[in-house]
Amino acid sequence: MSLIVKKFGGSSVANTERIFNVAQIIVDDYKKGNEVITVVSAQGDTTDDLIEKAKEINGGSISKREMDMLLTAGEQISIALLAMAIEKLGCPVISLLGWQAGFNTDSNHGIARIKNINTERIKAELAKKNIIIVAGFQGINKYDDLTTLGRGGSDTSAVAIAAAMHANRCQIYTDVDGVYTADPRKVKNAKKLNEITYDEMLELATLGAQVLNNRSVEMAKKYSVELEVLSSLERKDGTIVRENTKMEKMLIRGVTSDKNVDTISVIGLKDLPGVAFKLFNKLAQYKVNVDMIIQSVGRDGTKDISFTVSHDQADAAVESIESLKSIFQYSNIKKDENVAKVSVVGAGMESHPGVAAKMFEALFDADVNIRMITSSEIKISVLIDKSQTDKAVAAVHEAFLG
Amino acid sequence: MSLIVKKFGGSSVANTERIFNVAQIIVDDYKKGNEVITVVSAQGDTTDDLIEKAKEINGGSISKREMDMLLTAGEQISIALLAMAIEKLGCPVISLLGWQAGFNTDSNHGIARIKNINTERIKAELAKKNIIIVAGFQGINKYDDLTTLGRGGSDTSAVAIAAAMHANRCQIYTDVDGVYTADPRKVKNAKKLNEITYDEMLELATLGAQVLNNRSVEMAKKYSVELEVLSSLERKDGTIVRENTKMEKMLIRGVTSDKNVDTISVIGLKDLPGVAFKLFNKLAQYKVNVDMIIQSVGRDGTKDISFTVSHDQADAAVESIESLKSIFQYSNIKKDENVAKVSVVGAGMESHPGVAAKMFEALFDADVNIRMITSSEIKISVLIDKSQTDKAVAAVHEAFLG
Repeated sequence: MSLIVKKFGGSSVANTERIFNVAQIIVDDYKKGNEVITVVSAQGDTTDDLIEKAKEINGGSISKREMDMLLTAGEQISIALLAMAIEKLGCPVISLLGWQAGFNTDSNHGIARIKNINTERIKAELAKKNIIIVAGFQGINKYDDLTTLGRGGSDTSAVAIAAAMHANRCQIYTDVDGVYTADPRKVKNAKKLNEITYDEMLELATLGAQVLNNRSVEMAKKYSVELEVLSSLERKDGTIVRENTKMEKMLIRGVTSDKNVDTISVIGLKDLPGVAFKLFNKLAQYKVNVDMIIQSVGRDGTKDISFTVSHDQADAAVESIESLKSIFQYSNIKKDENVAKVSVVGAGMESHPGVAAKMFEALFDADVNIRMITSSEIKISVLIDKSQTDKAVAAVHEAFLG
Repeated sequence: MSLIVKKFGGSSVANTERIFNVAQIIVDDYKKGNEVITVVSAQGDTTDDLIEKAKEINGGSISKREMDMLLTAGEQISIALLAMAIEKLGCPVISLLGWQAGFNTDSNHGIARIKNINTERIKAELAKKNIIIVAGFQGINKYDDLTTLGRGGSDTSAVAIAAAMHANRCQIYTDVDGVYTADPRKVKNAKKLNEITYDEMLELATLGAQVLNNRSVEMAKKYSVELEVLSSLERKDGTIVRENTKMEKMLIRGVTSDKNVDTISVIGLKDLPGVAFKLFNKLAQYKVNVDMIIQSVGRDGTKDISFTVSHDQADAAVESIESLKSIFQYSNIKKDENVAKVSVVGAGMESHPGVAAKMFEALFDADVNIRMITSSEIKISVLIDKSQTDKAVAAVHEAFLG
């Protein structure tokens, strides 16, 4: 007998047919003798609809406490409906709100963090042989007010409960059947991975392979919760995320692209001591996350500094640099949106120095020009022209995984 | 400074415009220096929509516990939205779910009764000068599971909180501006009452003047909570419901009609000892509420018994009598749906024996035939042909109140 935690997102419970599909998956595992705790999100577009209602009333400055009161109703509806479907299939079941399931959080409404989970009620319901349905994304603070964990919070709810209950596995159901070596819609040779490490998963998530919420992967790593990413529509094994994986003779796990990136270039910057430090310090004050950086020494005692930021932070980056105009001199700032980042990820590359060279060769052969490069222990990223993204991903994937 | 409890139904908060209308009423009273606690129901058709979703999943036998989990999400949405609107109008406000407001109930899901209200949180929020918005219709049982008070339960929530907090007044907002001497849509001389007693209100509610939920009037009477029935759309005084009212020189308070009534006649019943007792005892076993009764002795040692029941219990009444066929003999059973009950209500009639005579005379003059009669201390009801209902109400209203 295993204790399994499952998580289904909003689209998996969007209508009666899908609710019964999810109920059947749960019932099948329960009937095999497993204990099953299932975390669900609000149905389909419920959360967006509720946000729309709130904006209609008070567009600007809605109290986050009242917003949490509003939004948590969404999962309340979905857990009740899913429990009713499981009842209909003849199994004992109980739905629990976040606070009933013991999710104690801090008081940062809208982005609350779980402080602890009081598992008393959950254990009592498991002892009664009940299937348990838990409202994801929500908890309660010390004032007895409802809180939410922020978008993607249901993944975090599931991993947290799996950790607290020492579950044998935490299954995250999605609309894809696992993690692929590249986006299967764009790269026809993309292969599904059987296993992947937490760190690789984190790099892939950061790089735009939006399968799992990052915070939940970090939590899974911290508490050694074995994750499985699998499809709610097809009954087949997904991708396991765990600390030690069989390497499957793969140098890299995947190739990803990220078009949500701009470059900012500060041209003709007077080369005084500490100028780069001051520049990036100011960006940090503006809460701008800088990713890649390149610096080139120009003529006549000036230099150019270019860096990448996510597209939605580009304007803040420009603004923060312009606020320094009185302190140090530069000729102009350029923003370029026509760039994209292509990355290879794999724990295997740590012991294989040839990965970078092989990647650059593949891009050279495909006539893709590299503008910037960064690398970590398990990742190499290059910045290229946005229009060449798909071609670049295909070429790199073919070289390593084709 | 007064403490005022207000209650708004679902149609009063059905959309953004109406929510702001309600918010403004609350804010106006708050700005006059009053403490205001407002109980609201779920928006418009929310409850019906949720019931529809549940039926789609498990038509027959939905667990009442899960049904309560589902339905209580409705008020959660409306309290959050109303609180946001009050925020927008610039006043401090907090929304509270039934359990947060301290509503402890028994465990009869769907029809729970309030055991007590822990007013600690409410008092703390009033001390912080917050306007309080409470989810009506809902509470929590001793197992920390959500419960509902049944349809019309928001009125009960409001009266209960007014009683627990010793509020100066409990205002029930509706789509009419008070209690009338007759249905103003049908009787053009119908007058709005300034005051009415609890008992009169109860008789009127029972008789189909569906302004206030009966259970809430009973509770208001028990705890001497002064009620006011008033309009959420027009700003004017409504009707006050309290124990001692000025009699306003009115013999009767109102004339009402009820078409939701059938007669059942058992013809040719063999006249043995205890036959009537056995008949009505059996009806009670079938949970059929009998209202008016008439018995006539027939020829040849038989008698006929006729009685009225509400339309939806008529079939159960017939069935229960047929189950007695083996015990006592009768020739046949007749059911008649073409009847209606017209009643006059007024505490003043206790000391005026001429009321019945005046009513019968008015009906005679209007050519309305009386089939049955019942009376209590403050009410006289007659059963007539359904097709004559409006004419009968108008004639009786004209005689007493015209």
